[in-house]
Order: sequence, then C-alpha cells, then structure tokens
Amino acid sequence: MKLNKPTLIIDKQKAVNNILKMSEKASDQQLTFRPHFKTHQNHEVGSWFWEAGVRKITVSSFDMAQFFIEDGWDDITVAFSVNIHEINKIQELSEKISLNLVLEDESVIEFLDSKLTEKVGVYVEINTGYNRAGLDRGNIEQISALLIKLETSRKLLFKGFLTFAGHSYYAKGEDEILEVHQRYMRDMISLKKEFGRQYPSLELSIGDTPTCSVAKDFSEIDEMRPGNFVYYDLMQLLIGSCKKEQVAAVVACPVVAIHRKRREIVIFGGAVHFSKEPVSTPERGAYYGEVVELTNTGWSLGETGAYLSWMSQEHGIIKAPESFIERIKVGDFIGVIPSHSCLTANLMKDSTLIINTNTHEEIEI
Amino acid sequence: MKLNKPTLIIDKQKAVNNILKMSEKASDQQLTFRPHFKTHQNHEVGSWFWEAGVRKITVSSFDMAQFFIEDGWDDITVAFSVNIHEINKIQELSEKISLNLVLEDESVIEFLDSKLTEKVGVYVEINTGYNRAGLDRGNIEQISALLIKLETSRKLLFKGFLTFAGHSYYAKGEDEILEVHQRYMRDMISLKKEFGRQYPSLELSIGDTPTCSVAKDFSEIDEMRPGNFVYYDLMQLLIGSCKKEQVAAVVACPVVAIHRKRREIVIFGGAVHFSKEPVSTPERGAYYGEVVELTNTGWSLGETGAYLSWMSQEHGIIKAPESFIERIKVGDFIGVIPSHSCLTANLMKDSTLIINTNTHEEIEI
Repeated sequence: MKLNKPTLIIDKQKAVNNILKMSEKASDQQLTFRPHFKTHQNHEVGSWFWEAGVRKITVSSFDMAQFFIEDGWDDITVAFSVNIHEINKIQELSEKISLNLVLEDESVIEFLDSKLTEKVGVYVEINTGYNRAGLDRGNIEQISALLIKLETSRKLLFKGFLTFAGHSYYAKGEDEILEVHQRYMRDMISLKKEFGRQYPSLELSIGDTPTCSVAKDFSEIDEMRPGNFVYYDLMQLLIGSCKKEQVAAVVACPVVAIHRKRREIVIFGGAVHFSKEPVSTPERGAYYGEVVELTNTGWSLGETGAYLSWMSQEHGIIKAPESFIERIKVGDFIGVIPSHSCLTANLMKDSTLIINTNTHEEIEI
Repeated sequence: MKLNKPTLIIDKQKAVNNILKMSEKASDQQLTFRPHFKTHQNHEVGSWFWEAGVRKITVSSFDMAQFFIEDGWDDITVAFSVNIHEINKIQELSEKISLNLVLEDESVIEFLDSKLTEKVGVYVEINTGYNRAGLDRGNIEQISALLIKLETSRKLLFKGFLTFAGHSYYAKGEDEILEVHQRYMRDMISLKKEFGRQYPSLELSIGDTPTCSVAKDFSEIDEMRPGNFVYYDLMQLLIGSCKKEQVAAVVACPVVAIHRKRREIVIFGGAVHFSKEPVSTPERGAYYGEVVELTNTGWSLGETGAYLSWMSQEHGIIKAPESFIERIKVGDFIGVIPSHSCLTANLMKDSTLIINTNTHEEIEI
C-alpha cells in the first residue's frame, strides 16, 4: 500500500483490542454497551463492533444514523437534542429501526407527537457539570415538568436519563477523572431514587471515554456510550485514560520542507486534515499532535520529542529536536497522533487506511 | 428554500462585490489577479470570478487543481511546496494546463526533472516573516543555490518569487497590516533587485487577504493571490481588513436547547461544521463566531451582542444577552459569522446555500 498524501492510518488490532476491552468491562459491570459511532463514522470499523457482539449504537446526528442503517444497525440512539427541522428523517428512521431520541425542551414533545406515526424511545439529557446540554441535575421541578409532559405523549416513550460528562476531558490524571465519575454517579443515582418508583424501568446512560476507561464501579448505571476509546488520541493520553500502545489512529503526512535553523519540519497536513483542537502542556504550550515514527507495519511507540506545534489550512509545522530532524528528508512520511481523533477522523473519511498487523500487509513509506 | 440543518449561506451579491473590488484594485495596480480558490472550493463561486474576467487561479493542492480543471480553468498555481508523492497528478496536470509549482527544497528539482515530460512553471517560496514555509528572504546564498540548481532543469521554468505574509492575520488594525505590507514589499523588491539582472522577467507574487484589502501601493509587485476576501469572516472583521457589510458567508444553525440562567443557547453547529479556529477579544476571550440575525433574504448587520463561545463535535454554545435570548425559541435558526471562513467552507461543502438577493428568493427560517 503506497501513501501519497495525508492519510489516517487505523491499526485494526489496537482498535479491536480497545473494543473488546471496553465491551468486557461493560459486560462485567452488567451495562448495556452502546458505543458512540461518531468517532469513526466508518462502515468497516463498525463491523468490528458487530463482530464483538455489539448490537446497539449511539450516533450524534440523523444523517449518521442513516449511514449506519445501511450496515444493518437497527437499534440507535441519536444522542443530540432533537432538531425539529429534521422531522422527515426522524419519521423515516422510526419506521425502520428501534430509535431513541434525546431531548430536554418541552416544546419539542408536542411537535414530535403531532408528526410521528411510530413510537420512539426518549432519553432526557441531564447536565452533570459539563454545562453543554441537558437539564441541571438539581432542577427536579423542571425535570418533573418534562416527564409529566412526556406522559401525555402517545409516541414518545420515556426510557431514562442520559448524561455526557465531557468535563472529564479537562481532567489531569486518574484522580481527577474519578472525581468527575463520582459526581455524575451521585447525580444520576439520586435521579433514579427520585423517579424510580414512578418509572421502575428507568435507565441511566453515561458516556465519556475517560471515566468509562478509568472508573471501575458503575453499579446502578444501566448503559455506557463511549466513542473515542476505539482510537483514543493525544488528549486521552495526556489526561491518562489510555496508554500509548492503545492509540489506534495516526495521521501519516508527507514532509514538504525542512527548516533546520528553526528546528521545524513543514508537513502536508493542516487544519483541513486534523481539525484544530489544541492540547497543552507547560513545556510546549498549545499544540496539536505527537510525532511517532512510521514503520512498514504501523508506527513505533518510542518518544521522538517532536510534535505538531501549529497548523494553517493545509500546512503543519513540526517542532523537533535536532537528532530527529537530522534523520528526516523532504518526501519522508511523518506519523502524528492527533489531539482529538474524532474531529480528525471526520475530516479524513476519504483518506483512511486500515492496517492489519496480523496479516503483515506492508505500507510503503 | 427550507433549511433543516447547519447550512453555510453565501450572499452572492456581497461575494461578487468583493471579487469586483479586488479585481479592480489588481487592475489599477497593474497586478495579475490570481485569486486563491481554497477558500470557496465551489464550482459556482468559481464561475463568478470567471465572469469578472479572472483567468488565472491559485489552489493549495493538486486535488483542488483537478476539481477546478473540470470547469475549464487552465492556468493554475498550486501554492504549496511540492509533495513528490503526487507526481502522477502533477504529470497529469502538466499535460492539461499551464501549471505552476512552488518549491524551496533542492532535492525536489532533480526528482521532478526526472519524472515530468512537460514543462511547468516554478515559483520559489520566500519567508517574509510568517515563518511557515519558504526560504528566508535574507538568505541570498541559499536562494542563489536553488536558482542555480533550477538552471540545470529542462522541465522547470523559474518564474519568480512567491510569498504569503500570513502574519498579517495577527495584525490589529490597519496600521499593523500596513507594517506587514511594508516589510514584505521591502523584502520582495530587494530580491527583484538582487536577481532581476539575471532573470529580467522574474515576477513577485504576494497573497494574504489583509494586506491585499488594505494596502494601496503594490508597485514592483507583479501578482496578487488573495483568497479569503471572497467571503471575509470574523477574523478579517476584527483585524480591520473588511467591513461587516462585506462579509458574504454566515452559517445558519438550528437552536436545539436554551439555558436562560446561564444565558446560553445550544445550537446544532460544532467543530465538524465550523472547524475550531478561535478569535479573541479582551472582553470575550477566545471565541468562534459572531451571531447575526437571519432574515428571509440573508442576515441583518445590527449588533446582537451574541457570540459562539464554545464548540464540541456537533454542539455550539452561544453566549447571549438576555434581550437576545428572550426572542429565541427552540427550532429557530441563528446566523453565525464564522471565525475563519476558509476552514468552515471546507467542512460545509455539502451543505452550502447560495442566495441571490437580486432575485428575492426567500429562505424559510
């Protein structure tokens, strides 16, 4: 396989191991495993989940749900507050599959009820500290009002509470991840206590990769929906939710210029390939990726000391120690662990190469 | 025209005015106008340039060159240091059109010369302070060596020096933009003096939107290649290279939730729609877009005080004054001037709506 431009390389063995590990954890904890497919958005990667026994998935848009229905997925939660303008897609999906929606706004209930002909499941989103979407977990009055409104619906079946504790992405190390975990556990379990008598089959669904990777106790929780863990990335490495050998996605970028005096390498690989989500360390400040050495069968795990320090639309600037730059020439390919693999994979849909280290297929670099 | 999901709205009149204004400036200054098409990457928008008399264009990749060849563009500069792995595309392009390449590394010359069968033009990239790509303008020795190497080539015709003064994007106000302009003018003109006797037809090509928009004297320069100006964006507004009425691109996003206490609106519109390039002001810190009110024929220019403060993959958080939030309900569409229209347009290729205010076609919002 010959590379010729920026290419997202997916190591199948690593990704499959990540899937199996998370799947086993869910099973050990008696959780429904409903992985989020927004990270990969890839039919083949989806099939690895299927082979691991997964039958229920999460996506973040109705378009993405339609993409995965093609492969036979028929139990999908669209974990994004309903956009009423997509009612035609919602109706179409509800006729074909077991569909769950997420909502937090009363006005949506009446609208959906008047338009849909099929029943759909509904999760009420709860804000457990990320402050992105959802009703505040302490606002029992508002949550009650929403549930009362849902009772009046003939089409929407309340299934439970859903949260995404995305503030775990800002954690530094295992202890801070576990703090986030403990807080949402407390918040979500208190809601189950509050509403469990009224709704005995009420489910609690949680989702972020850091706590799903690190925490060990999910009692009282019913479902986990992590997504990023299939590839992990530099952000997850830095916050401590994975090890370097678990990272399954690297962008291979051609070197187009070298500026030895500035200790910089210019790569073909910019914001249209990686997106532009920074990570940051005290030594490096904000940066966008960790450089690894590519091999004929993937990449090696040793430290190169080189990193993607800056990007414009198609250019990337690698800062590198002299010892690294010395070995590089124009035309070489450099591997970069992206800061946020979800955004990178979204951009690299048409330039993804899956390698299978078991079959020893070689990459020409 | 009914919107149903995040949609990039292009105001044709504004874009055409931007094209005509820049085209006239180039003509007044006796410059070749070779606009950069990486901003729009759109066949129809390209046709507006054609109608304005443009016949030469710039792109940032060979794939983009192939995209525009379909429309009959046949004089293209790929303003990106040559990636030798795309030699097949380069050869194909060189057979079809008048192609110019950009390079700075000697090793590429021999490679291209051994592979190409057709002649191509070559610009040598000069770094005039942006510190991204190019040979340092003061490094006459290295520049000379490259030109000597080029002399040995039977396929590569040296056409001149090219620079992109992207540091003008960091300017604050007209004075700082003009400082960048004065510096690259001095640098580039000194190169013309240095090498003009040897290469009497040597051209100087410059390219950034801020200086092309603001500066008034381009004597001795031969070509301008701005791209962003076709739409402009929030970054250009903030640095002072355009006025709000010139901004031709706005992303319309559906409101999916409202958090009145936090004075936040949640939109369907995130990093997979906008990309994630921040702008920053002392009052707001880093943010990603300016909110405008959508109308049936585009958007109004009044200040809303609302802005896109944060994004995750598909969610955007709008911070807004109470007076604005009061008027908004779930299901409304909100308009956002993106921080960096090039990156947004790249992501919204399949969700772009061109409006023509002259024909009074209405948008349903």
